[in-house]
Amino acid sequence: MSDKDVTKKLAAWIVGCRLDDIPTPVREEGVRTFFNWMGCAVGGARHETVDRALAGITPFAGKPQATVIGRGERLDVPNAALVNGISSHVLDYDDTHLKTIIHPAGPVASALLAAAEYHPLSGRDFLNALIVGVEVECRIGNSVYPDHYDRGWHITGTTGVFGAAAAVGHMLKLDERQMTWALGIAATQASGLREMFGTMCKSLHPGAAARNGALAAFLAQAGFDSSLQSIEAPRGFANVLSTKQDYEEILGGLGERWEAGLNSYKPFACGIVIHPTIDGCQQLREELGTDVGRIAAVRLRTNPLVLELTGKREPKTGLETKFSVFHAAACALLRGDGSPTAFTDEAANAPELIALRRKVEATSDPSIHEASVVIEVEFEDGRRIERVIERAIGSHDRPLSNEQLERKFAHQSALVVGTEVTDRLMALCWRLPELADVGEIARASVPAGLRDAAE
Amino acid sequence: MSDKDVTKKLAAWIVGCRLDDIPTPVREEGVRTFFNWMGCAVGGARHETVDRALAGITPFAGKPQATVIGRGERLDVPNAALVNGISSHVLDYDDTHLKTIIHPAGPVASALLAAAEYHPLSGRDFLNALIVGVEVECRIGNSVYPDHYDRGWHITGTTGVFGAAAAVGHMLKLDERQMTWALGIAATQASGLREMFGTMCKSLHPGAAARNGALAAFLAQAGFDSSLQSIEAPRGFANVLSTKQDYEEILGGLGERWEAGLNSYKPFACGIVIHPTIDGCQQLREELGTDVGRIAAVRLRTNPLVLELTGKREPKTGLETKFSVFHAAACALLRGDGSPTAFTDEAANAPELIALRRKVEATSDPSIHEASVVIEVEFEDGRRIERVIERAIGSHDRPLSNEQLERKFAHQSALVVGTEVTDRLMALCWRLPELADVGEIARASVPAGLRDAAE
Repeated sequence: MSDKDVTKKLAAWIVGCRLDDIPTPVREEGVRTFFNWMGCAVGGARHETVDRALAGITPFAGKPQATVIGRGERLDVPNAALVNGISSHVLDYDDTHLKTIIHPAGPVASALLAAAEYHPLSGRDFLNALIVGVEVECRIGNSVYPDHYDRGWHITGTTGVFGAAAAVGHMLKLDERQMTWALGIAATQASGLREMFGTMCKSLHPGAAARNGALAAFLAQAGFDSSLQSIEAPRGFANVLSTKQDYEEILGGLGERWEAGLNSYKPFACGIVIHPTIDGCQQLREELGTDVGRIAAVRLRTNPLVLELTGKREPKTGLETKFSVFHAAACALLRGDGSPTAFTDEAANAPELIALRRKVEATSDPSIHEASVVIEVEFEDGRRIERVIERAIGSHDRPLSNEQLERKFAHQSALVVGTEVTDRLMALCWRLPELADVGEIARASVPAGLRDAAE
Repeated sequence: MSDKDVTKKLAAWIVGCRLDDIPTPVREEGVRTFFNWMGCAVGGARHETVDRALAGITPFAGKPQATVIGRGERLDVPNAALVNGISSHVLDYDDTHLKTIIHPAGPVASALLAAAEYHPLSGRDFLNALIVGVEVECRIGNSVYPDHYDRGWHITGTTGVFGAAAAVGHMLKLDERQMTWALGIAATQASGLREMFGTMCKSLHPGAAARNGALAAFLAQAGFDSSLQSIEAPRGFANVLSTKQDYEEILGGLGERWEAGLNSYKPFACGIVIHPTIDGCQQLREELGTDVGRIAAVRLRTNPLVLELTGKREPKTGLETKFSVFHAAACALLRGDGSPTAFTDEAANAPELIALRRKVEATSDPSIHEASVVIEVEFEDGRRIERVIERAIGSHDRPLSNEQLERKFAHQSALVVGTEVTDRLMALCWRLPELADVGEIARASVPAGLRDAAE
């Protein structure tokens, strides 16, 4: 495909896309995307990363226009977008566009919901803008992945800013020229380094993308201009931040094939490479019953990425446990847990988990698919059983059902805001397309006591 | 030099640098850097780029903590930093670190002065932090220039965010660990594409660098952590954004050789490549008197970069005139003007300037230095005179004197805030090292009528 006017053509599509043009399965996936994002944002709301971000920015925040999800504070739109982008990503539990490892909702939903509390928006219009934003960031991601990611860019930050700009620009009803500017203002703010993985800055990336993308849309609305070829120009986004530029991935089949329909949701609060192991160990736990106490050895045959990324033998902190396939296997076998509570400082230092994880061995086998694992458990009496996971739960071939999404939401949200708020919030999220004012959902994420305190 | 702990060692130097450690000439250059920045920020304050930025962000701005230079508005610290960064760069009239083409003051002074209105700061401490910030951004720039710039990064944006973080972090008295985090939070926000040249987004870059760098320091102060090797890590700033990484440029001779002492100031409000031509034509104008009306032809022999970057024959707008060496020559000969008023829509369309610029020819000659030009003027009667500029005014070998800096400041500032405010403001800027509270300078940039209106 010619590299001419990629940005303008994409902007024209964004401006023209209506909810009725979007196929029903993609709309349904949009609701699931939002539902999962909200559960993660509530689940992460009390993380110390969020506390420290709030401590840093609150002295400079503007009018109380938008809700910090799951908490009492209210901030101006860009700052609320920033904080909600952080909290929705901080537990590594959010959604994944598997082709690019983009976590799509963090930048887009965080920007959009904050903006929607300022410019009231119906659920239908919100869903439309959300799907457009996710589509834009994933398509731009496809056009530069994997080279862009391999170079060291955290693709959720670099493409998320486009998604947020597109979504907020759609809700603001920018015209084509303004939308082209908004994409340009987004392009020139694209940032986020993979070096930050394992630090608080990793979660800053979707937050900053949400804030900067929303500002791009508001600036473009105010007539702040930009390049009209920000994606495809020789010194534009794709050429400067990547060695690969495939514009067919951006413009091909727009409105026909939908990246937004391919979103997936993590069943476990850690990197995707150890999901097959957790899935298999949870299944084995069901089968073993009390035999779990008599395990002599656990042997994993895994894709080589598993040991490359999660080969930490003796994790000392909750954060470090996310990078230990040994811990993850032990915790799934002993506690059946792969949720955020499996990756805490307590879990890292629990004697029974330490004892079992030291019995876990892992070998790399290039013939094993990334979504697969072979697990052998040997007991003290010499008996052995094996479990083969062909495709882990949460992967594209075994998506989480709505019921599983609800269990995931309820488990993490109840720990932060209690079951009553959680139940009401989940019901509201499912009803997204019917709501007259989606800001209602944001406000419903805050327990009444905190709400009163903030007012 | 080993690439180990570059970021930590730089942070340790930042934290420990005291004003008394800085040689007098570098301190004096620091005052000139600040003086020139302030003149440019006032000069650009009413540009429509600034109007539109304010229109876009004001609905979300926080408490009135800091002054929008030269105007009545007051914004929260990060937003004031953003807007002042824009206005100080929008006329292309600011300072230049010639080795890297970084415009150092925009990100650093904009962040620092806004922060100093919130956390009152003496002139000595301000000057200390300013010089440290400029030193940091220019050294990081040296370590990746020219590869980084050639790839398409607007280096003022990408390195300016480090400078702003270092300066604000210095004034906040961050400890070494916090300063290392601040540099990391800056690194992962580094952005700005050269594709934006010729659009409002070019000025957004120093503005965003100022805002994001200030926030990096405030976040680090609040305990928001980051990588400890953000500059040198395999997936850190230098490797991801450049093919060249020369860490000796960052750590070598710290506190001994000073990049901050090499700052230069544009005498003309356009790209540096046409400065020799304007300089020569202004000199010829003095010599020619009324003969200027009898010019038949002007022939320029220039460095090849001149036609590559500024070869526009028929500029239609003020912005376009900045990319026309023909216009610049004509305007310098006829009006003696190379200031912002030479690059307006009026000038672009003035019949007498159009007539003369059509008589200007330029040829590329690789033997001509970038700071040089040979100008031949031929009159209607066949007479010819020639002027050779070996080194243009404002270049490293012919720096602007303090008096010339004052004329530059006064000319642009008086058009925006009048002569009375301008005179008082200039006097205050020169007295920077003696002031008890530098916020006084920011407030003095606003005419009394506007100040009252905002309060």
